[in-house]
Parts: sequence; C-alpha cells; structure tokens
Amino acid sequence: MYTLYSMQKSGNSYKVRLALAQLGIPYNCVEVDILQGQSRTPEFLAKNPNGQVPLLEVAPGRHLAESNAILWYVAGGTALAPEDRIERAEALQWMFFEQHSLEPNIGSAYFWLSLVKGGRDLQSHALEDWMENGYHALRVMESHLTKHDYFVDGRLTIADIALYAYTHVADQCDFDLRGFPAVRAWLDRIAADPGYVPMDWQPQMAAE
Amino acid sequence: MYTLYSMQKSGNSYKVRLALAQLGIPYNCVEVDILQGQSRTPEFLAKNPNGQVPLLEVAPGRHLAESNAILWYVAGGTALAPEDRIERAEALQWMFFEQHSLEPNIGSAYFWLSLVKGGRDLQSHALEDWMENGYHALRVMESHLTKHDYFVDGRLTIADIALYAYTHVADQCDFDLRGFPAVRAWLDRIAADPGYVPMDWQPQMAAE
Repeated sequence: MYTLYSMQKSGNSYKVRLALAQLGIPYNCVEVDILQGQSRTPEFLAKNPNGQVPLLEVAPGRHLAESNAILWYVAGGTALAPEDRIERAEALQWMFFEQHSLEPNIGSAYFWLSLVKGGRDLQSHALEDWMENGYHALRVMESHLTKHDYFVDGRLTIADIALYAYTHVADQCDFDLRGFPAVRAWLDRIAADPGYVPMDWQPQMAAE
Repeated sequence: MYTLYSMQKSGNSYKVRLALAQLGIPYNCVEVDILQGQSRTPEFLAKNPNGQVPLLEVAPGRHLAESNAILWYVAGGTALAPEDRIERAEALQWMFFEQHSLEPNIGSAYFWLSLVKGGRDLQSHALEDWMENGYHALRVMESHLTKHDYFVDGRLTIADIALYAYTHVADQCDFDLRGFPAVRAWLDRIAADPGYVPMDWQPQMAAE
C-alpha cells in the first residue's frame, strides 16, 4: 500500500489525495506539518532532498516527489490520465502551466495569507506580483473554460485536479472570482463529481 | 513539418531546439523577440493566450505551449522519453522541479541580468530570493548527480535537456558553480553528446 506524506492544508498535497479518492486507491497518510519544520528534518530530507510535500513512497525506500508527477504515477493507465499523444501533451501543458503560472502566485498567496500568522506583513513586497500574475493565470483559464467544460478532451482528468487545488481556495486569499464565471462553473462541476472529496476530508485509515 | 515559435536566447525555447536536434527532426523556426513585445501581440496571443515561447504548431491551427510538455510531445516514443511507469514519473518529477524550483530562480536571474538592459536595478527586490532559491535547486541537483550520471535511468533523457537549459547559463547571472563539481561534470557530459547543439545554433532551414 502507498504511503503518502502530505499536509492537510497544502493544495499540492490535496491534489494527490483527491486523485487517490477518485480512483478508490487506499493509502497510509502521514501528516507532515511544514509550518512546524517537519519537512526539513534530516529524516524527511533523506526521503526528499527538496524538502517538500507531497511525497509518495512507491516501493520500500523509493520516493516520488512533485505533486503533478505523483498524479501521473497513480493515475497512469486510468481514465484520469490521457495517454493519446496530443491529449497527454495538452494535459502536461496545463499541469506545467499550473506549477509555473498558477501555484507560485495563488498558491503562495494562499500559504502566506491563509496559513501563516503575520504572513501578509512578511510577504508584503511580493503580494502585488502574486495578485497580478495570479489574475493573469485565471484569465488564461477563463478563456479556455469559456469554450470547454474541462481542460483536456472534454472530461475530468488529472489536469483538472492539478488546477483545481489552488483555484478552489483563491477566494480565501484576496482573489475575487466574480469576474470569472467559467472558472466558477468548472469549480462547481468538479465538486459535483461522484468521486469528489473536499480538502479537509481524511481517509479512514488515518483515523484508525 | 513542425513550426516552432522560439526566442534564440530563451532557455525554455532552447530545450525544444536541443531535443529536435538530438532527434534529427526538421522544423520551421520563427523567432519571437519577447523583449520587443512580440509574444504579446493579438496574433500571438490568439495562438497562446499565456503569451509565452516556446510554442509548437503541431497541426494547422493547433498549438502546444509549455516547453516541458512540448519535449514530451516531440520525444514521445523515442529513447529520450522514458515510458516505463516509474521512470516516466521520475522524469516528470525532475521536469516539474525544473519549472518550479530552478527556472523561476536561475531563469529569472538569467533573463533580467543577462538579457534586459538595466534589469539588475529593476529587479533588485527579487534578486536575493532568486539567488537563495537557485542555489537550493543546485544543491538538490548536486546531491543527485553525485550518485548518478544523468537524472533518470542512467542515460540522457528529456529530464536532462529540461534541466540543462538554464543550469548551463547560471554562470552568466551571478551563480558560482565551483562548489558543484557533479553538476559541472554533468553539464560537460551533455555538451559532449554527439547530438548536442549549443544555444546559439540555428537550424539550416531558418537561414535559407
């Protein structure tokens, strides 16, 4: 069984938990509180030298990092992962967009404004860039979603799961989504999927 | 034949040119000077709403963005793209690391310090973060390359090509690689590959 090192309030970790829930795959979930430095201990750095969650133990002692790479690993061969040549490339395009244009802006704003006490003051020099670049990313998504229900191939894939994680908390960190009706309809569409679980959902084995 | 929208001095664009050269795939190369605003024209934004190069026209009117997604598209099915389940995930892990931990720091420093006149003054508020985070990324790479010749499966793959692009210009933007002997040996290893072309190499058809 997989062991997933995850932080409950981390959007990047939530992506993997959401995909595993959609796929009905059981796993052991180990909470790593990065706010308490638990991703920077020697023990954790031996597993992931980059010191980040999520991290998936795919075999004893073998660990895979980077949320979107983990999505491809766990969803490969299922309906969530497009394997047709152009559709795979388009899913990857949106997932690299997510890590390059969305997560560093909306994800950073969410982390510092919603999770870290006093974060707004600590990061005041960066906030303007995050807001400007985050709104740019939302406009790119709105433009696509005005013409499509999902990001790739007209159906829910790991590209949607990757983009959903931080977009669905954007309104918790100063972003106003009222001007993005197609994005909001897409958020509702994903939350209405039968396999959906919210960010604060915990797998049963974690409570046992 | 592919049409690639590329900027000669862009590391992200160079990745695709290097992979296409390695694979011996001919293409039309259209130079887009982002410093002159050529990626923000209405014509270009109709092709890529995110306003970035590289961009690959994969079929008439169908465009693929994000350098690392383009690498998977052009190299899929060749020896450069690992398709085994865990090796594919590990290649993706390093490529997401590249876009999230390396390119935003070393790539931004390269862009503003090497390409934009007066960029050092314009970005003085961000430079310290780029240097700190860029060195962190280099340490993660050094740690891996101390034990491995390449990033995945002991051979040259698109993960190396992705990471090479900005690492090989790090010394042009204040980074000192003397403390990273394994990274330097890996840079030399890639440049010694028979299919290698340097960043300023131009495909013949562009000169015709």
